This record gives sequence, structure tokens and C-alpha cells, in this order.
Amino acid sequence: MSEKIAVLGAGSWGSILASVLDENGHDVRLWSYNPKQVEELNTQHTNAHYIKDYTFSPSLVAYSDLASALDGVDAILFVVPTKAIRSVAGNVAAILKEKNLQPQLIHASKGIEQKTYKRLSQVLEEEIPESNRKGVTVLSGPSHAEDVARKDITLVTAASANPESAKFVQKLFMTPYFRVYTNSDVIGVEIGAALKNIIALGAGALHGLGYGDNAKAALMTRGLAEISRLGTSFGADPMTFIGLSGVGDIIVTATSSNSRNWRAGDELGRGEALDDVINHMGMVIEGLATTKAAYELSKERGVSMPITEAIYQVIYEGKDIRQAISDLMQREGRSEF
Amino acid sequence: MSEKIAVLGAGSWGSILASVLDENGHDVRLWSYNPKQVEELNTQHTNAHYIKDYTFSPSLVAYSDLASALDGVDAILFVVPTKAIRSVAGNVAAILKEKNLQPQLIHASKGIEQKTYKRLSQVLEEEIPESNRKGVTVLSGPSHAEDVARKDITLVTAASANPESAKFVQKLFMTPYFRVYTNSDVIGVEIGAALKNIIALGAGALHGLGYGDNAKAALMTRGLAEISRLGTSFGADPMTFIGLSGVGDIIVTATSSNSRNWRAGDELGRGEALDDVINHMGMVIEGLATTKAAYELSKERGVSMPITEAIYQVIYEGKDIRQAISDLMQREGRSEF
Repeated sequence: MSEKIAVLGAGSWGSILASVLDENGHDVRLWSYNPKQVEELNTQHTNAHYIKDYTFSPSLVAYSDLASALDGVDAILFVVPTKAIRSVAGNVAAILKEKNLQPQLIHASKGIEQKTYKRLSQVLEEEIPESNRKGVTVLSGPSHAEDVARKDITLVTAASANPESAKFVQKLFMTPYFRVYTNSDVIGVEIGAALKNIIALGAGALHGLGYGDNAKAALMTRGLAEISRLGTSFGADPMTFIGLSGVGDIIVTATSSNSRNWRAGDELGRGEALDDVINHMGMVIEGLATTKAAYELSKERGVSMPITEAIYQVIYEGKDIRQAISDLMQREGRSEF
Repeated sequence: MSEKIAVLGAGSWGSILASVLDENGHDVRLWSYNPKQVEELNTQHTNAHYIKDYTFSPSLVAYSDLASALDGVDAILFVVPTKAIRSVAGNVAAILKEKNLQPQLIHASKGIEQKTYKRLSQVLEEEIPESNRKGVTVLSGPSHAEDVARKDITLVTAASANPESAKFVQKLFMTPYFRVYTNSDVIGVEIGAALKNIIALGAGALHGLGYGDNAKAALMTRGLAEISRLGTSFGADPMTFIGLSGVGDIIVTATSSNSRNWRAGDELGRGEALDDVINHMGMVIEGLATTKAAYELSKERGVSMPITEAIYQVIYEGKDIRQAISDLMQREGRSEF
């Protein structure tokens, strides 16, 4: 069945997800705050700054006016940056109220809100009242946008407390190259998606320092164990961390030099100063803020997160990175779980 | 405390583990069936065919006589190939009985016995009577021998039904660069270690076919899920598969062209015939026999293992590899767990 879907955010991931939905025969409206990008999408059917050598179908229409994009929608997919999600959701709420709409809400953003340390589905639920939404579903998993653009195989998870919403989202996106699994553990999926960037920073740093495959696999595994500990303290299902939004996303992010967080870690490992690294990147390195959030949450909740703590000390307290690794390795022997 | 330890099998992994034990001050006897290798180890302190550019300490002594190697031992570490473990264990049993010894047994081999489909700790327990052993412990995890040789960071797990044995093994090996975690789930650790080679074959095949990072991460994640399903049907703890011997070992094996199984898969993906691939390798590709074992076990136990089944069909039934992937992707949408 064809649905009316607004996709909010036309970065690489948002625009490719919009393209998958368009290909599945839905009526897709891709919203961007940037009028030039909207014009490029509508006239040239490209989004060259975000996805190279990719042409969108003319049936995919871009909007710079949020209210027009939301007209009569059955579902809204948020793919805006973590920082922007609360304000965009606030604007969406006002429009949905005025139009008296109650769409499914989906988000595919990755992060934890700064200062409040809230998950993004929590932010959506706070800003958009129940009378103006059906279920809230998170779409996550190991997924470089470039691979989806090439119609390479991609598997993701759609997590919602409401099973019908998860199935609705599964059906929306499912194609022969883009496969969606349902899941009920929103907390685990969102925490895995956000905290994986800490591991990407660490894996990059080990690479920059010259460590090999064993060390990186160990970091990913023990990093996953501590993310899982923090997640379960919030009520997540430990099995989620063995899934697409857990280990799957960690593998893609922490083994690929395509990841900004990995590259930032690599430069730190090579001995560059943090400020220089931030300047080099010219883009937000989400893992830095996520490390702070996870470190403070772990202290608050009494959860042991030695890798996160070590990365926090390197980034925020100027600890020598080799000393931090040496201290990690010299902890007393313990049980794996 | 210094222990007397016989290490049986002087391949790359066995000889490096012997070196770690030697460095920790133990009295280590490295046994090999090959007298030339024993001579090289004792006179030149090298094992050049297996580990390049590495010199062993003169305190590490190699033996070609099994009974001498076992004289007065506190522990025996088996690192012989899967095929040889039953016959070596039988010989060990006779000697232990004669010498009236009761050592700790450890193994660091990876595989499932052909035909019987037994785990290697089961083989040890069958061949060596309880009166001639203390606990049986499995040492496993993401560990290229070459990385340990460079004293790179390596984390492994020591799993035993007997917690004291696991702690004994942890203490034997623990160094600042080789960190050992204890675990009680022998079944999960052994199944993860053996079946990861199926995933390595599959990841290599995807690479050979030209698929990207999303596809490989998806294969590893869904492959881990089905290994976990088979493992739990035998009583394994699902959490083990999130650990060093599960996801950790899969990451190292399935992302590295150092793995023979990965290379074999890669060649199959590029369209080479199976027989040619086997001839190229000139060494056993464990994943081939493991795929058969896992496929048959999954049928016997009614466990769904679609990836293993697809690889089985490609290897043993001549199914076209692209068709197998297409069939996997077109299965009905389902829940992640």
C-alpha cells in the first residue's frame, strides 16, 4: 500500500532512505532547511554534496516548507542531527495539531541529547503529544548510505514498543536489497546506535597507535560488553547488543575509515592534539559528546565502563593515551560477564 | 607460582602460547610430532615455518617424545589440529595413567570432530579418564598468533565448568599484553570458536562478489544470531556469543584476509570452482567441514540457520552463489530475535 511519508533531513542517510521509500511506491516528501538543496533535488534530482554520482527519481519531491511536506502524512521519518531534533519536533508538533494528523513517527538519527542525556525517541515523545502520533519506531543498523545507494545488501532493525508500528515500518522499507527486521527494544537499539561512536573513536586510536587486529577486536568486544551493561541498567534487553544495531553497527563503524569518529581517533592515536583534530574534521565528531554523556551516566548509575572512562580521561583530562591503555591492561583479572 | 606445563602442538598458535607461558616463568615443554621442528626449536630457538622473525627464549624446551614432555606436569595445553586431538588424547591418557598424574587440561584448538560432531572438550573427557585430570578449560578468543608474537594487545577467554580451573588458566597466561577473562560456558565458547569459520567463508564470498561493508556487517551479525541459536539449543548461554570467543573471534576472522577460510570464500565469490580453491590453498579449509557439521546439526535439532544452509547449498549442492544470496534476501520479513 502506498503511504504518504515526510522525510525530515536531506543529508546522505535521509535522502537515501527517502529514495528507498520512493522506489517502494510511496508518496515521499523530502524536507530540508536548505532551499538551495531543495532546488537541486527538484531540478537536477541530485544531492551532490552528500551523495556523489547518484540520481534520484523525479517522483521524489523536496520541500523547504515543513507544513507542505507534512500535508496529509501517514508517517514522518526524522533524520535530522541530534542537536536539531527537539526543535524540529516542536515545529512538527504545532503543524500536526493544526492539521489534526496522527502519523507514525520514525527516526533514524543516532545520538543522545546533550545535557538532558535523553534518547531521541524520548525527545520525540516529549515534543509531540500522543494525540498527534501513533507509535514511535527507531530505524538503525549497519548502513553506510553509499552502500544503499549502490543497492548493495543492507540489513537494519526497526524497533518500537508497539509491534504494529515496527511491522508498518518494516513493510515501508523492505526491498530485495534493503531488509528490515522488527525488534521491540527501543532503549537497547538507541543506546547501541549512540554509544558505538565511542568504540569507533577507540578503534581509530588503536590503529593510529599501531596496534593490530587482536587489539581492535578485543576493544570492540569489551566495548560492546560495557555498552550492554549501561543499556541493561536502563532496561534494555542484553540480546539487542548482539544484533544489527549493536554488534552490526559497531563492526561497520569501527572497522571503516569512512567513519568520522574512527578518523578522529586515528589522528589522536598518531599523537595529534585534540583541538587540531577537531579543526581538521570541520564536522561534528559525535563520539566526543557521546563519550562525556556515557561517562557521566555510568558514574551516576554505578556501571563499570573502563574503556569509556579511559577515552574520557584522554579527551577531557589530558591523560596520555599509552598510559590509559597500559592501565586498562593491568587491571586485575576478572570474569568475562 | 611456577607450573610444569606441556604444550602439545607446535604450530603458530601453540608455539606462541608456549612462549607466553615461558615468559610468565613456567616450566614449559613444547611437544611436536616433527623431530626437525623440535631440533630447530632447541638449537636455533626459532619455528620459522610457522612464525617468521621470532626468537624463542632458550628456557623453552621442545620435545618429540610425548612421555618426556608430560613428566610431572601440572597442566597440559592441547593445540593440535581437530583431526588429531582424539588420537593424541588417547596417547596422553596412557602416559598419565602410567605416571599416575592428574593435571589440568586446557585446549586452544578450534573445530568440531568430524562424523561424531563432538566438541573438543568432549573428546578430551572421553579419552582421558577423570582419575587422570582436573578440570577441562578452553582458551579462545580473537587472536592472530602474529599479533601475540609482537606483544600486541590480545584478550582471550578461559572457559571451564570448574571455576577454579578457569582461574588457574587465567593466572597461567595473564601478562600485561595478554589478558585472560574467565567464563563458565564451555559449550558456547567451543561452538562459537568452531562455527565462526562458516561466517569467515561467507564474508570472503561477499567480498569476492563485490559487496560492501553493510553486507559484511549484516552477514556477521545474522550469522552470529544463528550460531547463537544452535549453541543455545545445546545449552550454551546466549551472552557468550556477545563475548571474546563469539563476536570478537568473528570480527578477527571474518574481516581479515589472513584467514584461510576468508580467502577460500573470496575465491569462490570471484567465481572459482571449489576444487580449484581447495587445490590453491594447499591447507585444510576447516570451514568446509564445519559448514557440513553445522548444517546437519541444525536439521537434526530443528534450528533455523539460513546462512549456513545457503553456504552448504553452494559448497555441497552446486547452487549458484548469487542465487543463494538473492533467496536469502527475499525471505519474508521477520523479527530480529
